[in-house]
Amino acid sequence: MFRAVILGSGASLPTLQRQTAAVAVQYEGDVYLLDCGEGTQLQWRRAGLRFGRLRAVCISHLHGDHINGLVGLLQTLSLADRKEPLVLCGPPGIREYWKAICRYQGVGVGYSLDIRESEGGEVIRGKDHGLRCALLDHGVRTLGFSVCEDERPGRFDIAAAEQLGVAVGPDYGRLQRGETVTSETGATVGPEQVLGAARPGRGIVYTADTRPCVAAVELARDASLFICDATFGTELEREARARGHCTAAQAARMATEAGVDRLLLTHISARYHDARPLLAEAVEVFANTEVASDLMEITL
Amino acid sequence: MFRAVILGSGASLPTLQRQTAAVAVQYEGDVYLLDCGEGTQLQWRRAGLRFGRLRAVCISHLHGDHINGLVGLLQTLSLADRKEPLVLCGPPGIREYWKAICRYQGVGVGYSLDIRESEGGEVIRGKDHGLRCALLDHGVRTLGFSVCEDERPGRFDIAAAEQLGVAVGPDYGRLQRGETVTSETGATVGPEQVLGAARPGRGIVYTADTRPCVAAVELARDASLFICDATFGTELEREARARGHCTAAQAARMATEAGVDRLLLTHISARYHDARPLLAEAVEVFANTEVASDLMEITL
Repeated sequence: MFRAVILGSGASLPTLQRQTAAVAVQYEGDVYLLDCGEGTQLQWRRAGLRFGRLRAVCISHLHGDHINGLVGLLQTLSLADRKEPLVLCGPPGIREYWKAICRYQGVGVGYSLDIRESEGGEVIRGKDHGLRCALLDHGVRTLGFSVCEDERPGRFDIAAAEQLGVAVGPDYGRLQRGETVTSETGATVGPEQVLGAARPGRGIVYTADTRPCVAAVELARDASLFICDATFGTELEREARARGHCTAAQAARMATEAGVDRLLLTHISARYHDARPLLAEAVEVFANTEVASDLMEITL
Repeated sequence: MFRAVILGSGASLPTLQRQTAAVAVQYEGDVYLLDCGEGTQLQWRRAGLRFGRLRAVCISHLHGDHINGLVGLLQTLSLADRKEPLVLCGPPGIREYWKAICRYQGVGVGYSLDIRESEGGEVIRGKDHGLRCALLDHGVRTLGFSVCEDERPGRFDIAAAEQLGVAVGPDYGRLQRGETVTSETGATVGPEQVLGAARPGRGIVYTADTRPCVAAVELARDASLFICDATFGTELEREARARGHCTAAQAARMATEAGVDRLLLTHISARYHDARPLLAEAVEVFANTEVASDLMEITL
């Protein structure tokens, strides 16, 4: 199971249609929460997600529409008797923010919170996958996140192995692990003779709140799903630039440059009661585009 | 119009049935928000309330389930171009809390926020009504709030005025304002001769998060509606005491002592999927009791 569940697809001002930013990304048994706008914990429940699977909360930046739900969520996990450690990842400053809130509210949490401040690189290593981040271009230090499956070995060519005289059994496994074996006729057989090209892992990339930038394109390179800031339409391109956002068309151009499979527009301004104009301008540039909606789920 | 709209009737852990603490109290054109748990701004929209009428946000204390929605709400008002000043009232510490969040998030609001820290007394004077607070007993400094109509003059007895020979016209108004007049026969007529007893104003009192205490009873004295902490049932009275809360029966005993008209149990623990047992134990003590539910509205 590799999927994204949109918990909040709106921009700064939440509405009953679009709550503020939050995306849950699940890779097998591990769930990562990317951003945590106000009300995310209830959206999490509405989506039928399980708190027990939450491994990390990753905050892109400290603006309210991306972080105002964090304190409530972390407190709820504690009230629900969580004992497993939780990773909290964000740009530098997030540790102080959390410590200040705990001090003012006079409460903490009953589990270990492993706070990782980062400005780029892999921040979490999971089984067969990793979570990386990169600094984007939003005016304040803002991270994009990528949950990527590790590269998988190429397909094993059974017919080739038989033809080369490899004994059926443990030698198949050795070749798949990259070792060299001796065939039944005494010849040396290397993995390159029976394995296809390594298959790149699938990836889900999330870049909320950024101007178009090389860092976002590089993070999204070859992603299966690219969830990208599309706060405004082209008619507000100047406003998008001033406020550090993308237009829908700019998101689509980044998707094209990055060679992604699929684009999902998110962080939609509350002014767009109907987001079809944003979709239309993006589709002209990158056909495989959708507009995110709250509680939408995309399984790879 | 004098009414209370329950925006969140739950305790610390929000559920889809009960969000965390928030009550809107409307007196004519003025609305006061008492507590602001996470998600209050969306509950406000669901209740059909208008942000333009919001005069003050009053926070009982700094625990997350009473304040986690504050920052988002204040930011939304700013994004919605509010220009009118807003009062933010709370216990000492609320000013520093707000300043710290603005500093960490790197944003403020575009209207004047008139922060009033208080430990008791009238904090807001409105037309024909006032908002008072009092320190309760919750372990940390916690305020209860009362929105009270001013005492209204007694009813004017037209028959008595006629009998005493008061000229129909301006003298009626003078008597109602408490002045003395001269009758058509030259006699002196005082207001006490034509006015009934002064009528006490109606009041809505909210005390979330408190142990039973004299201060809560005094604040609730003769209230029309008393919205009171009833986190637990009597079977958890010890836990209620340890955590600084009331049981439903204790809330009902305070309602009886205070001589209120009507009791509304709120801050219901998430463990009570069915709150009827709480209602049952309260009703045994104080008959005119209801259990609050989200978006419930009570008009006096």
